[in-house]
Amino acid sequence: MKAGLLIVVSGPAGVGKGSVIKRARELTDNLSTSVSATSRKPRPGEIDGVHYFFKTREQFEAMIKDQHLVEWVEYCGNYYGTPKEYVSRELEKGRNIVLEIDVEGSMKIRDMFKDSILCFIVPPSYEELERRLRGRKTEDEETIQRRLNRAIEEFQYIHQYDYIVLNDSIDEAAHRFISIIGAEQMKTFRNLELIDRLTSKE
Amino acid sequence: MKAGLLIVVSGPAGVGKGSVIKRARELTDNLSTSVSATSRKPRPGEIDGVHYFFKTREQFEAMIKDQHLVEWVEYCGNYYGTPKEYVSRELEKGRNIVLEIDVEGSMKIRDMFKDSILCFIVPPSYEELERRLRGRKTEDEETIQRRLNRAIEEFQYIHQYDYIVLNDSIDEAAHRFISIIGAEQMKTFRNLELIDRLTSKE
Repeated sequence: MKAGLLIVVSGPAGVGKGSVIKRARELTDNLSTSVSATSRKPRPGEIDGVHYFFKTREQFEAMIKDQHLVEWVEYCGNYYGTPKEYVSRELEKGRNIVLEIDVEGSMKIRDMFKDSILCFIVPPSYEELERRLRGRKTEDEETIQRRLNRAIEEFQYIHQYDYIVLNDSIDEAAHRFISIIGAEQMKTFRNLELIDRLTSKE
Repeated sequence: MKAGLLIVVSGPAGVGKGSVIKRARELTDNLSTSVSATSRKPRPGEIDGVHYFFKTREQFEAMIKDQHLVEWVEYCGNYYGTPKEYVSRELEKGRNIVLEIDVEGSMKIRDMFKDSILCFIVPPSYEELERRLRGRKTEDEETIQRRLNRAIEEFQYIHQYDYIVLNDSIDEAAHRFISIIGAEQMKTFRNLELIDRLTSKE
């Protein structure tokens, strides 16, 4: 069984990470998002292990302490994080996992999973990013400015990433993203079994 | 202007290298083969600089001596080789060049062009390779055996390649090959200009 790929996606707010991942998942049958752990209470209809792994604050803090999380954040008083064991298990099953994570978190994932593939989604231009953020009409001016400043911070990490995926159109960006997965699966070090089979013939 | 990619394709005789490259070239508008230099006489209709760069034996030997060839072979009394200058010039123009070259030649190209991308095309199995070679009905038994033995030799180089492209169907293999080109074009180090443009906004 070939191990799955762990693909990390970063990029500034407003660049369209979520839309590109969603479209890419429609285009291929082996691309899952991770199930996060959270200390927030389940909402009606939410199922443990499907929408989230629901934990108490104490349980979540124990997971942090025992380094059972790939990354975690505290947001509006609740913890959210990616359980390391879940990711490892899915990869072993041959599932490709995509994680949408900020730049600092991505660097930690690379340390933890050395074969992970880091993709940074970029807008065609800074001006276009600003246009997209304003277009959402969900944030006030101060928030927009904060996100734009944060974008500049995030761009400083871009050299640490393996691939730059231009999002000029969601569909094209999703196809580009799928190409990366396809190419990475052909990397020699991921096909040692196939090579063994061919080279053992003497 | 973004530089083109130099893609080297190797693989055993009978695996379908030529067919995969041909199909890939039909699928994309930026993939050229190189124009080889040769000491053989032009055949009717062959144009210098289009089909080959025609050279005298003396000129070709001077090119070998001056290291103006990426690789060369002598075959049936004539020299054939890939002019380094032609390849460099096409890459500078942003053209992606594919070279079909044997394993030893590929290693030399990697030394000469450190960003070249080495792809090894493999059959689904050794038995399938044997079937394909026999299916061509162009070689006698001795030649087939020699090619199969050579295949085993070539497989020993496979770990030096970047990508393993399975040729189970020409069309699928060509699409896989195109994915590699697409992904390689997104590699961070090939997009420094785009990154500069985004990060210089402060």
